[in-house]
Amino acid sequence: MHTLTVELGDRSYPIFIGSDLLSQANLYIPHIHGQQVCVVTNATIAPLYLEQLKNNLSTFKFTSVVLPDGEAHKNLHTLNEIFTGLLSAKHNRTTTLIALGGGVVGDMTGFAAACYQRGVNFIQIPTTLLSMVDSSVGGKTGVNHPMGKNMIGAFYQPQAVVADISLLKSLPAREVSAGLAEIIKYGLISDYEFFVWLEHNIELLMMGDEAALSYAVLRSCQNKADVVAQDEQEGGIRAILNFGHTFGHAIETAQGYGNWLHGEAVGAGMVMAADLSMRNGDISQADFNRIVSLIKKAKLPISAPQNMTPEQFVALMGVDKKVLDGRLRLVLLKSLGGAIVTSDINLDFLMQTFAACR
Amino acid sequence: MHTLTVELGDRSYPIFIGSDLLSQANLYIPHIHGQQVCVVTNATIAPLYLEQLKNNLSTFKFTSVVLPDGEAHKNLHTLNEIFTGLLSAKHNRTTTLIALGGGVVGDMTGFAAACYQRGVNFIQIPTTLLSMVDSSVGGKTGVNHPMGKNMIGAFYQPQAVVADISLLKSLPAREVSAGLAEIIKYGLISDYEFFVWLEHNIELLMMGDEAALSYAVLRSCQNKADVVAQDEQEGGIRAILNFGHTFGHAIETAQGYGNWLHGEAVGAGMVMAADLSMRNGDISQADFNRIVSLIKKAKLPISAPQNMTPEQFVALMGVDKKVLDGRLRLVLLKSLGGAIVTSDINLDFLMQTFAACR
Repeated sequence: MHTLTVELGDRSYPIFIGSDLLSQANLYIPHIHGQQVCVVTNATIAPLYLEQLKNNLSTFKFTSVVLPDGEAHKNLHTLNEIFTGLLSAKHNRTTTLIALGGGVVGDMTGFAAACYQRGVNFIQIPTTLLSMVDSSVGGKTGVNHPMGKNMIGAFYQPQAVVADISLLKSLPAREVSAGLAEIIKYGLISDYEFFVWLEHNIELLMMGDEAALSYAVLRSCQNKADVVAQDEQEGGIRAILNFGHTFGHAIETAQGYGNWLHGEAVGAGMVMAADLSMRNGDISQADFNRIVSLIKKAKLPISAPQNMTPEQFVALMGVDKKVLDGRLRLVLLKSLGGAIVTSDINLDFLMQTFAACR
Repeated sequence: MHTLTVELGDRSYPIFIGSDLLSQANLYIPHIHGQQVCVVTNATIAPLYLEQLKNNLSTFKFTSVVLPDGEAHKNLHTLNEIFTGLLSAKHNRTTTLIALGGGVVGDMTGFAAACYQRGVNFIQIPTTLLSMVDSSVGGKTGVNHPMGKNMIGAFYQPQAVVADISLLKSLPAREVSAGLAEIIKYGLISDYEFFVWLEHNIELLMMGDEAALSYAVLRSCQNKADVVAQDEQEGGIRAILNFGHTFGHAIETAQGYGNWLHGEAVGAGMVMAADLSMRNGDISQADFNRIVSLIKKAKLPISAPQNMTPEQFVALMGVDKKVLDGRLRLVLLKSLGGAIVTSDINLDFLMQTFAACR
């Protein structure tokens, strides 16, 4: 098992990464400070792991709240179900919430913990590869508003994160790939050595090798923790974590949310950002080919949908207006393993990227 | 004009207290850091002061959200109206929310600011005496849940508070009295000198004398700020601010919320807490009489409703069970001007207080 500490002063917390961790209650029980526990999970995960977790916490007053599965339910209305569950079972300010699920459950449980009686403790047990490497670090919690994703939330840190790689056995292959998109991102933006490791180990990862997955999760979380420690509330450097995301969001929006997985859109978005970086002369054709090859091996899309026109990208990303104002900021590669945030965008090159990557 | 700084490290902020401050835009404009402003107010206050505030902020992109008036609307549903207003007008992370109203508007606007895009700035312009002395200091924000008051919220500090005493001209006399309950509380729990000042100035305060009201607001905020600075998130000493509130809540619950104003219930609750303190031998009969006299001059109730039985208090405060477990904690006076939080409750004396104070 690996233990990584996210260093945030008095809000520091450990991430435990390894196999069969859910069964090791001694890992997470020390991070439950009161006598009450409320596990928040969803209808897909509950039948798989809730009973086991409940049995491991038999010495606590135990409540569970089972939410409907899916991003469509990540809203204030579903959030209120968590509060109702807590109040019905008379949970007080000493309670601990445990998020057992993917990113949606983690974001909502974290936000519920931030708000319930103005703040109670919470622990994350992510059940998807994406949530292990993404929401485990950074403290972003929240829900969607009909007019915008993640518009309502808080920066709020957990007491501990338990990333049990064995839980990924139940994860559909398509979601493993989606998680790998974020993992590859860390190699691209800040860790060339890790990128090379991924090139050598992508087949093992795709086969579900737990040792390889553990290492990939550890290294990703380390990379993210280093960035977040420098910029907890996203004033500057943290923006490099959005590599591939601006292009990816345009794809998600064009296709309707939910048709492409977020990680899939990020996969194609990273290829587009790399393509533009190549046109800028910052990475070579050979580098670009390596990036495309790795993303392809992770069974992720390497281009936007054929039916998306450059004009659509221009409209969805607000390119025209934003480039003129200098307000279009993109994360681009200065090298394989190094990213910058820049508003110095060559519009011709960008249009070429839109045309080339579909 | 008085300026009081609430000392909370990098979350410190000024409270401006005086007459005709709303018209002095130079006071609050320096605390608006972006180009966008959203004023949140209610249907009672909007016709009185919204236009003036809007005119004073003509250099900003200005949006207003007018909520229905009253505690009944302090919920997630109404909160969402603020988010919808912000998103409709494309407010970004640099926006500043301004709460123009009483406690409900202040609590909801502060919580909306805490959550909108994971945290934006806000300024408070309280329009009631209660909110000037209560929600101006302490950073408690939030909304109610059908199963409990203030169960959903955050500790979140404003950039500045503008307590314009002249706004109190439009406040009904009954609400002035309710505000005085909290003001008297500060004298009782931590400031004997202020208690004496209140004895001498209660008539002026009741007449709406702005200089006297300014001083009373200043001194109350100072007292509260001293307590909050020691214990921002209510782990210990801050609980003394609940003097009179445990009894008061029982009265509010028994009468149905909204029939008694919160300040009225606190008035009677403070008499009950003082009565128990006298039975404990910590304050004299003469002290007790002075307390009752001052509360009475503020036109506040000095006893629980006649129809409330000791048994009802026992049930509503959970006395039986909580006293046995040592979990009933009350704020009592050790002297006139000094309070403690104690779970060392003499049950006989408590029952005598229930019987005597109605």
